[in-house]
Amino acid sequence: MILYLFDLFGTAVFAISGVLMAGRLRMDPFGVVVLACATAIGGGTVRDMAMGATPVFWISDTLYIWVILATCVATMLLIRHPRRLPWYVLPCADAVGLAVFVGIGVDKALSYGTSPLVAVIMGVITACGGGIIRDVLAREVPMVLRTEVYATACIAGGIVHTLAVEVGPDAVTASIAGMVTTLLIRLAAIRWHLSLPPFALDR
Amino acid sequence: MILYLFDLFGTAVFAISGVLMAGRLRMDPFGVVVLACATAIGGGTVRDMAMGATPVFWISDTLYIWVILATCVATMLLIRHPRRLPWYVLPCADAVGLAVFVGIGVDKALSYGTSPLVAVIMGVITACGGGIIRDVLAREVPMVLRTEVYATACIAGGIVHTLAVEVGPDAVTASIAGMVTTLLIRLAAIRWHLSLPPFALDR
Amino acid sequence: MILYLFDLFGTAVFAISGVLMAGRLRMDPFGVVVLACATAIGGGTVRDMAMGATPVFWISDTLYIWVILATCVATMLLIRHPRRLPWYVLPCADAVGLAVFVGIGVDKALSYGTSPLVAVIMGVITACGGGIIRDVLAREVPMVLRTEVYATACIAGGIVHTLAVEVGPDAVTASIAGMVTTLLIRLAAIRWHLSLPPFALDR
Repeated sequence: MILYLFDLFGTAVFAISGVLMAGRLRMDPFGVVVLACATAIGGGTVRDMAMGATPVFWISDTLYIWVILATCVATMLLIRHPRRLPWYVLPCADAVGLAVFVGIGVDKALSYGTSPLVAVIMGVITACGGGIIRDVLAREVPMVLRTEVYATACIAGGIVHTLAVEVGPDAVTASIAGMVTTLLIRLAAIRWHLSLPPFALDR
Repeated sequence: MILYLFDLFGTAVFAISGVLMAGRLRMDPFGVVVLACATAIGGGTVRDMAMGATPVFWISDTLYIWVILATCVATMLLIRHPRRLPWYVLPCADAVGLAVFVGIGVDKALSYGTSPLVAVIMGVITACGGGIIRDVLAREVPMVLRTEVYATACIAGGIVHTLAVEVGPDAVTASIAGMVTTLLIRLAAIRWHLSLPPFALDR
Repeated sequence: MILYLFDLFGTAVFAISGVLMAGRLRMDPFGVVVLACATAIGGGTVRDMAMGATPVFWISDTLYIWVILATCVATMLLIRHPRRLPWYVLPCADAVGLAVFVGIGVDKALSYGTSPLVAVIMGVITACGGGIIRDVLAREVPMVLRTEVYATACIAGGIVHTLAVEVGPDAVTASIAGMVTTLLIRLAAIRWHLSLPPFALDR
């Protein structure tokens, strides 16, 4: 289905962000693949382990791993011949991946019979968990915990999705409504550099 | 039951320590919630995933999540109007949470038929795992691995608990004996600033 | 069986590397045990949780934990009386542990019916996952992601192992072929200080 293709697209885009982080830390090719995998499938792995949906998704369907490996190779080759992309291409592709990952996480949780609250959490874990693991491996305080409207877009999309399941006509419409919500909020945040105010204590 | 109320109390106290850490790192509200959740339910989540007790506890009983969310909001609001608490209030509340978490972890492991050794480990993971995850996310070497008598209190309480299950009259008494042991050792450590000697290598 | 003894040997060697790291960070005895456990059984734990092989292996067979505890005590005592070992003893012992862990991880994955690709990944996670968790707890960028031929040896061994299962006479021969491959590549890397070229981006 088309959602599956978008899922693989999101996997590839998230993997690229892992590759770039690994390059900034001067990692070797194994480190590149580990950071790409952590970013692209780390969130879904934690989601599946917490729900007991084991073996986790990429064990049953190895296409995710092949997409990540191909992305690593392609990124490492292409980056030697930098044909400069406009700056907004990667963030916008990332936003599409983010929206799809939230939708898939919410759908999977609901199909396991969780409450709407847990479904939203699982959507957010699917979309944001990988980036958190990548940043921990790279010894950074996770970016998503700091200032951008990134997780917030996921939460909003997840809430719309679960609400639409309750009141809406069918699951597919609900899913699309949630994903469009995440996508639009995230794109707006990229366009206007939106951030939430930090909560700062001076002790 | 009263143990459940203490469990929720411990969840709230641990969440506060996550909120305070997030504030020191100037995180945004999402980061605050993530650090609060990591601290309060991270240990129990790892315990459940390792034992295969999935879906993990907060998926089946979402009250834990609501308590954490309410604690985050309350802490962020109240801290703007600092009515100074005596310094020992938070550590002592934390000690109560610690003792309860060890007891719950040991009980749950024993109910899954693990050996006493594993039950003690599960008690320690339940009580200390969340703080370790919080510190990793905050890019600190986990405090509990360094110098305070914190995990030690949990280990002692867990051992008393599992021994008392073997020789004692009933499981509830054993549970209380373990929790009181953890609590007293931890309170003594707070009162007299006890630490274990570090193991230091100069290479 | 003899493989089980090698497995316990590898557990002890990996635990030593955790103890040494804890000593460098001046951790207390609890920190020493946590880092030893993370290094020695962290990889296998993640493997089992991802495959749904729960309760994880050291819950059913507590001998692993006892080996780690004994190793911690012995290392902390012996290090006070430094009878200098030749520098290559620990790396070579580590290489043996590495080879055994890859073989065990691949075997376990294949026995759960995974594809060869996933079996190789599970071998690498078993062997390298613990060191990554140790380094994250110690607030280091994981060594294995950076420059040594360490994970690469595991990948090669895992590939030989899974290929040999397809074409070879029996599972034991395949297992040995894989482990010998890992061991030889790793020993060569130690002997000639081999590293992979890093992938470095200057942005």
